[in-house]
Order: sequence, then structure tokens, then C-alpha cells
Amino acid sequence: MAETRIRFGILGCANIARKVSRAMLLSPNTTISAIGSRSLDKATAFASQNHFPVSAKVYGSYGGVLDDPDVDAVYVPLPTSLHLQWAVVAAQKKKHVLLEKPVALNVGELDMILAACEASGVQFMDATMWMHHPRTAKMKEIISDQQRFGQLKSVNSMLSYVGEGDFLKNDIRVNPNLDSLGALGDVGWYTIRAILWAHDYELPRTVTAFADPEYNESGVILSCGASLNWKKDGKVATFYCSFLSNVCMDIVALGTKGNFRVHDFVIPFNEKVGSFYAVANSEWAELLLGCDPEPSEFKIASDLPQEALMVREFGRLVEGINKGEGEPEIKWSIISRKTQVIIDAVLASLKNGFVPVEVVY
Amino acid sequence: MAETRIRFGILGCANIARKVSRAMLLSPNTTISAIGSRSLDKATAFASQNHFPVSAKVYGSYGGVLDDPDVDAVYVPLPTSLHLQWAVVAAQKKKHVLLEKPVALNVGELDMILAACEASGVQFMDATMWMHHPRTAKMKEIISDQQRFGQLKSVNSMLSYVGEGDFLKNDIRVNPNLDSLGALGDVGWYTIRAILWAHDYELPRTVTAFADPEYNESGVILSCGASLNWKKDGKVATFYCSFLSNVCMDIVALGTKGNFRVHDFVIPFNEKVGSFYAVANSEWAELLLGCDPEPSEFKIASDLPQEALMVREFGRLVEGINKGEGEPEIKWSIISRKTQVIIDAVLASLKNGFVPVEVVY
Repeated sequence: MAETRIRFGILGCANIARKVSRAMLLSPNTTISAIGSRSLDKATAFASQNHFPVSAKVYGSYGGVLDDPDVDAVYVPLPTSLHLQWAVVAAQKKKHVLLEKPVALNVGELDMILAACEASGVQFMDATMWMHHPRTAKMKEIISDQQRFGQLKSVNSMLSYVGEGDFLKNDIRVNPNLDSLGALGDVGWYTIRAILWAHDYELPRTVTAFADPEYNESGVILSCGASLNWKKDGKVATFYCSFLSNVCMDIVALGTKGNFRVHDFVIPFNEKVGSFYAVANSEWAELLLGCDPEPSEFKIASDLPQEALMVREFGRLVEGINKGEGEPEIKWSIISRKTQVIIDAVLASLKNGFVPVEVVY
Repeated sequence: MAETRIRFGILGCANIARKVSRAMLLSPNTTISAIGSRSLDKATAFASQNHFPVSAKVYGSYGGVLDDPDVDAVYVPLPTSLHLQWAVVAAQKKKHVLLEKPVALNVGELDMILAACEASGVQFMDATMWMHHPRTAKMKEIISDQQRFGQLKSVNSMLSYVGEGDFLKNDIRVNPNLDSLGALGDVGWYTIRAILWAHDYELPRTVTAFADPEYNESGVILSCGASLNWKKDGKVATFYCSFLSNVCMDIVALGTKGNFRVHDFVIPFNEKVGSFYAVANSEWAELLLGCDPEPSEFKIASDLPQEALMVREFGRLVEGINKGEGEPEIKWSIISRKTQVIIDAVLASLKNGFVPVEVVY
């Protein structure tokens, strides 16, 4: 059935593209037909090292990929400052767009990207892999269960890792010309998405940054956090994101009747089985000597890695559009835009003395 | 060695006094010699139901306990609004004071209690039981380990439970005349203590309440949270406390080289063994396909329940003072006062539109 595989072109040789290339080859409905880099040698080496099909073409430019009629869709893992330019051109050339996160430097840029996709009738999706893990669906099922979870009251999400080697000096993610959002864009993106996901994408009314952000010498964010306020039913959420703390990938969500915790929500420790912990209807023991039940571990198997499930879903949508059987699925644009709106609000609060910033969609 | 047991008197028949009575009888260096209640019948029934020694005296007043020469120390689990009056009288009558939390309605009241204790040379300690669990010492050892944990960067603590029956209408803890601090005093106390404990009791510079507190009809806090800011090394902490969410008793602490999590820090699920989870020096797997090592579970056995360990430590200090071998251990006063200072700052922020409030010790 190779004829019906969606053919990806890849822009650039980012490290993350190695993982997503593997996913494109693992997913049953996609393949790789081209890669482009400013350096032809680099693209050639990348294709070889990542087991691209022999038929895959290699270009010494991004434009070569976008002009290739054998490319249905592009995956864009370029530095964030280049997303606007290349995602727009890709859409204009009728390529479906799978865009790495953070999707843009601000919502104004994202709107231009989304407008270009809409004008061309191509699918847009951001590459937030954990959204596609079956564990995520199971956690959502629990949060949505009125008997097990009740009303959602509070969410805390923390995401951090320590970049290796000279990461803090030379990595793209701390370069103000390439990824000026720093940790807020790279890891904060996930924590904000987690909070929105838990709230069924209902936007908060205000966002207030914590007063202790850290910056590198170029003014790029290395750590920060914020509280999100719905001003409704006492709902409050907080996140913290950092390039300076040992790996932590946590969501804790509290409901009136239950709660759940996950400790590796972005990248499961184990590719084949994702765990989380949930409890419902806890009661204190006699004399307050304990509490029962304790949280239970839930293990959710995944037949494909979450990034392959992402690529498969993207391919499925693209195939529907290409066959004239479907329209672009707009929910992915909306979710992206809401995430970016919160990032913009956090940034505004950080820049204005940690004041509450109204969220405007 | 019954002669050397410290003899406790108990003021009132609060539910929590059942647990602490049991602890006084379990601890090898303490016993119960008296209980007083406004109702003699209630005190008599309490003594019988909680297996008091036959020698224990029963009074129809708090004053009877305080005037009893066979009482070395008093445990005060009265509603918070009565702490000032009775803890001060107890100290003036040369009784050592084990005071339930929250210790007072504000730091001004606490200062009067502490001054009375100091003037009489009696020991003061608040009844924060988890401080005395060996697990707490082990977690502290990990946090303090520069190789395993590095620098402390961020702490989140969440504590909640749903009161049973008509708790939200009629419990002492939501009565503005008895416990006007509500959830902030009852459960927020622990989350704030956890944050201070993790920071070696270094006070933050500012406290900023989250904008979504919940109150009952009488204006008593049912849920709230805040961020704490040290304005140093990017350190930030957050807490959330609630009477409206299913039981959660979490601390997550992030360091530059490691982190730890505990899910039952206030009351261990299991009285005999307390768990927590820690990880150090995590590394991403090749292709970012996972992360290694995963957090490991640490199980810390306890030969006595944590409340008995608390009573034992209190008894040890009192015995030293009574024998002329030691002075009152001032650290317990300092820790209490710092916790109360933060509670006062949270309250000030809540009352003043969630502005940052400077912490003044």
C-alpha cells in the first residue's frame, strides 16, 4: 500500500528531526520523500544516518523540498524565528504543515501561518507528541468522569531538564536570534498545553508570572512560571518550566472527587508503556491514621511510539483532504493558537513586573 | 521507668486529641495524667474511650488541668481562636506547651504565646507531626546532597481533603469565630511548612496569593494558594490548599541535579512505612526516546507512628529541662513563627487584591 503513504519532506537537520524521521518510517501511512538543508552534505549524511528510503531526495535548500511535487507535507523543525517564513511558503506551495513547537514567536506570527494554511486548504498541526499517546486519552477519560474525578479544581505542571555540555551558551534554544522564548517556548509550551488540555481548552481569564524568572546573558528565559486564573469555581493552575533543573515532567490535577499524577507526560520513560497514578473518593482512616484508597498505577500500552501516532494521525487527515473526503481538522490550529496566546500573556506579565495579564483570544 | 514519664494534660476533647492521646500512651517517655473539658461528662467519656490510665484525672474545666501539680505539659488542641488565652495561661502556670496548628490567628498572638513560654522557661512545640517521621529526615538528607540534588530551585506543595458530612457548614475549621483561617490555617499550614523545611527555613522575600481563593458564606477560606519568591538564584515555590478537593498530600522539589516527590507527606498512607520517590542526574536516551534513570521509590520504616515520635521528642526536651540538664529548644518556636509569618503574608495578599506582600520576620 506504499502508493497511499503520505510523503513527507523535512526542512533542516535538527536533532529532533531524527526522532520524527523514525516516526515517519514507523507509521504505516507515511514515508519520507525529501529533506533539505542549507548544506547538501549535511542533508545527505542525515538521510543516510536516519535510514531514509533510497528514493528520498536530498536538497541543499529548503526551497527545493517545497518545490518538489513528490512532497505532500512538510515537517518544520527549524529554529522558531524561521517558522513564519518557511511555514507560510510551505502552505502557499500547498504543502500540509507539521510544525515543531513553539509554533511561532508570538500569536501574530502564528496567525499569518494559520491564515496561509487556511487559504491553501492544507492541514496544520503542531508537533506536540504526547497529545497522541493513548495514555493521554485515558487520563482525559478519568478527568472527565464525574464519579471518579468530580469538578477540576487545580492543576500544577512542571517541566524541566538540564541541557548537556555547552547548552546554556550555544544551543539554538537559548539563542535570542533563533529561539528567543527560551525555556518558556521549549518546555513551557508543554506545561501550558497540559493545563489547557486538562481544562478542555477553556482559556483562563488572567495569567500572572512568578517573580523569579532566570535569564541568560542575552536575555533568553532559562526558567519561569505563572499562575493561571479562571475566576470561576475557584479553578487555578500553575506551571514551572526550566532549563536549570533535573528532568521533571509532571502533571498533578486535583478534582473534587479524585486526582491524578503523571511523572513523564512529555516523553514516557518507557516507549511501550506509559504510567500514571489516580485515586478517587479517598477517606481518612479511623483516628486519621492514614488514608484509603492509595493512588493506583495505571499502565497504558502503546503499539507505536507517540511520535509515530502523531505522524499517523497527521497522515490520516492529509489523506482525507487529498482524496477530497475531508476538510483540514481545525482543532489543531485552535489548540496551537490557545497555547501561543498563553505564552504571549506569560511573556507580557514577565516584561511588566509580574502583573496579571488579561488573556485575549 | 514510669517515674520519668512526662505527664501530659489535655485541654478539650477535639477529634485530633484521640490520635495524640494514643501517641502519648505509645511513646515510652510520656503518659496522660489529666484531661479537661467544659463538660465533665465529655471528658470522662473521652478518657474512657481512649484508654487513659486509671490514674488520669478528669476535669470539667481547662483550668483544672492547668492547676494540677501532676501535669508537666499540656497539649492544646482547642479551636485556634482560643490558643492565645489558654496557651499563655498554661505557660504562666509553668506547663510546657504542645500546641496544635495553626498555632494562632496571627503572628502577634503567637508572639504573646512565645513570650509567655520564654518567661516561664517552658518548652514550646507545635503539633506538626510529619516533621518527626524518619522519612522527613531522609528526604532532607537527599535535598542537602550536592551530588544527588544540587541546588534547590523550585518546590510545589499541595494539600487538600474533602470534609465529610456537613463539614463545610458546621465544622470548627470553617467557623469564623473559632478558626477564621479556614483551609489556610488547617492545611495551608503544612504546605507552607513543607516549603520552608525544603529551604532550610530561609524565609522568602515576598508572597503573592493566587487570584482564585474560595470562601464560605462566613468569609472563611475554603481554598487558596500562593507563590513564594526569594529573589535569589531563581528560587520559587508554590502551594495550594483546599477543603474542596479529594485528598492530596504532595511535595515536589526540583534541584539542579535531582528531584523528589512525596504523595502522603502529612499522614503516611501506611503508618509503619513511608515512601517517597527521588531521582538524580537524569539523562535523555538516544533520540530522546526516554529518560534514564526513572525515579526510585524509597521506603522508610518507622518504629513508632510519627505523632508518637513527636510526643517522644517533646517529652525528651521537657525531661531535660525538668532535670536542669537543658534549656527549652528554641528552634521549634522559630519554625512555628516563620510558618505563621507566611500565613499572615498570604492573608494580607488575599485581602489586598493578590498583590505581592513583603515578608517581615
